[in-house]
Amino acid sequence: MNYLSINDIDSLSTWVKEAIALKKQPKKFKTLGNDKTIGLLFFNNSLRTRLSTQKAAMNLGMEVIVMNFGSEGWALEYVDGTIMDQGTSEHIKEAAQVISQYCDIIAIRAFAGLVDKELDEAEEVLNGFKTYASVPIVNMESSVGHPLQALTDAITLEEHNFKNNPKVVLSWAPHPRALPHAVANSFIQMMQKQNAEFVITHPEGYELDPNITKDSKIEYNQEKALENADFVYVKNWSSYTDYGQIKSQDPNWQMTLKKLGKAKFMHCLPVRRNVVVADEVLDSEQSLVIEQANNRTYAAQLVLKKILESNEN
Amino acid sequence: MNYLSINDIDSLSTWVKEAIALKKQPKKFKTLGNDKTIGLLFFNNSLRTRLSTQKAAMNLGMEVIVMNFGSEGWALEYVDGTIMDQGTSEHIKEAAQVISQYCDIIAIRAFAGLVDKELDEAEEVLNGFKTYASVPIVNMESSVGHPLQALTDAITLEEHNFKNNPKVVLSWAPHPRALPHAVANSFIQMMQKQNAEFVITHPEGYELDPNITKDSKIEYNQEKALENADFVYVKNWSSYTDYGQIKSQDPNWQMTLKKLGKAKFMHCLPVRRNVVVADEVLDSEQSLVIEQANNRTYAAQLVLKKILESNEN
Amino acid sequence: MNYLSINDIDSLSTWVKEAIALKKQPKKFKTLGNDKTIGLLFFNNSLRTRLSTQKAAMNLGMEVIVMNFGSEGWALEYVDGTIMDQGTSEHIKEAAQVISQYCDIIAIRAFAGLVDKELDEAEEVLNGFKTYASVPIVNMESSVGHPLQALTDAITLEEHNFKNNPKVVLSWAPHPRALPHAVANSFIQMMQKQNAEFVITHPEGYELDPNITKDSKIEYNQEKALENADFVYVKNWSSYTDYGQIKSQDPNWQMTLKKLGKAKFMHCLPVRRNVVVADEVLDSEQSLVIEQANNRTYAAQLVLKKILESNEN
Repeated sequence: MNYLSINDIDSLSTWVKEAIALKKQPKKFKTLGNDKTIGLLFFNNSLRTRLSTQKAAMNLGMEVIVMNFGSEGWALEYVDGTIMDQGTSEHIKEAAQVISQYCDIIAIRAFAGLVDKELDEAEEVLNGFKTYASVPIVNMESSVGHPLQALTDAITLEEHNFKNNPKVVLSWAPHPRALPHAVANSFIQMMQKQNAEFVITHPEGYELDPNITKDSKIEYNQEKALENADFVYVKNWSSYTDYGQIKSQDPNWQMTLKKLGKAKFMHCLPVRRNVVVADEVLDSEQSLVIEQANNRTYAAQLVLKKILESNEN
Repeated sequence: MNYLSINDIDSLSTWVKEAIALKKQPKKFKTLGNDKTIGLLFFNNSLRTRLSTQKAAMNLGMEVIVMNFGSEGWALEYVDGTIMDQGTSEHIKEAAQVISQYCDIIAIRAFAGLVDKELDEAEEVLNGFKTYASVPIVNMESSVGHPLQALTDAITLEEHNFKNNPKVVLSWAPHPRALPHAVANSFIQMMQKQNAEFVITHPEGYELDPNITKDSKIEYNQEKALENADFVYVKNWSSYTDYGQIKSQDPNWQMTLKKLGKAKFMHCLPVRRNVVVADEVLDSEQSLVIEQANNRTYAAQLVLKKILESNEN
Repeated sequence: MNYLSINDIDSLSTWVKEAIALKKQPKKFKTLGNDKTIGLLFFNNSLRTRLSTQKAAMNLGMEVIVMNFGSEGWALEYVDGTIMDQGTSEHIKEAAQVISQYCDIIAIRAFAGLVDKELDEAEEVLNGFKTYASVPIVNMESSVGHPLQALTDAITLEEHNFKNNPKVVLSWAPHPRALPHAVANSFIQMMQKQNAEFVITHPEGYELDPNITKDSKIEYNQEKALENADFVYVKNWSSYTDYGQIKSQDPNWQMTLKKLGKAKFMHCLPVRRNVVVADEVLDSEQSLVIEQANNRTYAAQLVLKKILESNEN
């Protein structure tokens, strides 16, 4: 099995329960991954994903090889039939087959470039490995999705009495740089599997891919969207329609305690304080961001455990 | 417990004895760190510190995660209340709390910038982690101190019959680049805990922080300072009063065999040959630099062992 | 023992048999390297070598420390007697002795600079470590040779019924960048130990070091060289006589299925598709490149096993 998107979860509620059980006994399966190696391939920088996935693999007794492709390797070619006389030194066909021989699982981080929508949506890095590798692939954030984060978020919601049809709001926030859509996309897809009143709020012009948002409610008025929210997930993303552009840095969209009301505050981190969200929110007891980061370990560990177990059969 | 400065050593003579015992049986406690993870966070490059601390942790059975913040992560913000709309992507408040959830011990290297004395002395990286992390912190060289090196030096001195009130001289040396004060500071603080005749010698204008040197003897005449020395520790540092400036590159301060006399030669490495010290010294049997480097492993291992044991209680 | 060049193999046929046995039971000696550490020092980027050597060491139960000298360390000085007031911060004398105290085996990758032939042939990095280190040294590709690759190639040849005096052709190929001679050199030296009809083919001006090629046959006519070949090893290298220069990018030297005939295709990877070799070759069943990459693990593992065993005596 692969873990490429939130759609690779067969039963979200079961996975969440299993992850919470793992969190209570993280070393229970400490020999499951013995003699198995995971390769963590980073095409972009990372803090939480890198450390938590490494920790998750070690909790399962796996060997971990971390490789930063940019600084330690070289540029890969993804296009079929290319005459490789330019900047790329190795084709994904070879790289993926070769790494599959050294690693029992390959995990990949490769962000959207935010220049060419079609190219980003083709997910050439993730799909290249999926196509040519002979071992399971785990998505550590691709152009389009960040399903380890979304699983983490589902775990965190569950730990905070996510039941009785709560109201969950995904609220766009300003940011000085153009950011990808991956976290928002996967959070939305995860929420669409939940029993909840789910609302997305953002300025006009920040509509996400309609194939992702589907019939999820979009409310352009943030104040209205936040009314009686139980959980508020804040995240910046750049424009999808005017691809990769910054259309607004309106500070009025920053999350504050007043706007948050009694809701719990969530964010995937890293977060820019007093731009995306006010100090008062992050430093309050309503903030779940540190718990979310902790749950990254157990989300990853559950995914790796399932892959290791599926390969045993 | 943390290991932030030489002042975190409760009894230097006891620690030195324990480190020498560890050196004889480095694998004696090979299961003490099982299921524990140490994160080595480098904000600056490293050779000895990186390898010896990694080795020390492995000798204790720990898992090691190495992260180079510059190339693999992103710039952290340390100032409270900042509107983070510039170059920093994550606040130390989040980073430290988050990493504490993946690592049982966090070790940090963050050099002085040598531009802003007040900023360097605030030790924002080390103190940021100390303040916000929930796990023990180890200093792998900060702006102001390098206490793992100083403990190493104490071990090396002890192994070479450091007794009967020997004369130990810390002698400044020229260097083409402006270097921090950390190694000199910690060596001085360590020597102030020893029974020895301790003399610091350097050109005028190279006085170190008087809060560090306290009443340690300073002798501007190198020849006079070196008379009848038993151990000579050579190290360059940039000016402290005229902060971070190079005031002299006078080659007459280079250490030579003639100047060294019968003393043992010490240096923390890396060392620039024939600038800081002549080949003839480094290649002689009076040089202890390779032994010092070896003792880095046991200094680190003792510190980690004490932290692991203190956390068991 | 060291593994610096193909000449460190006492009996190639025995080593190849032993490597093939290891490949069948890669975990058979999983405790041989317990409590032993290998340091993988990269002065140049790597994919296969890094991952396969790390995997090989882990298969033997060793601890692995990977260090990228460029980004994580600093420039070393190799020349004796230098006044080190320029760009280099540490002399190989100290670095090699120091690292020997943390690592039981040191493996090194340091490519040819292709600017100064004499400097490259002096192999200052590899020989510096050989001279000053006190532990075994493994060559992970140096200026002049890549003996782990050549051992891999011998294993792959053997697995494909390399017997009855087959015809093996080393065929130069065009490439947009100037590449080192190391792979070609070691392949030639390995072939000189085999019972085979061995032919080297390249455009005039691409003659390799005559001290390497010795009396191996050189045929400038590629078509003639390839006649009735059983194995064709394709590789670009820059000019040796006009050192490091690109004398030809003639696309007629690219390997095609037609030229290959019934021969097996070999390449060390990474390979530039449709420049060095046509897609049709790499995607055919005649290509052995993925198997070659896999055998890198067992070549490295055999070398490490022999070193570990030799040190036990």
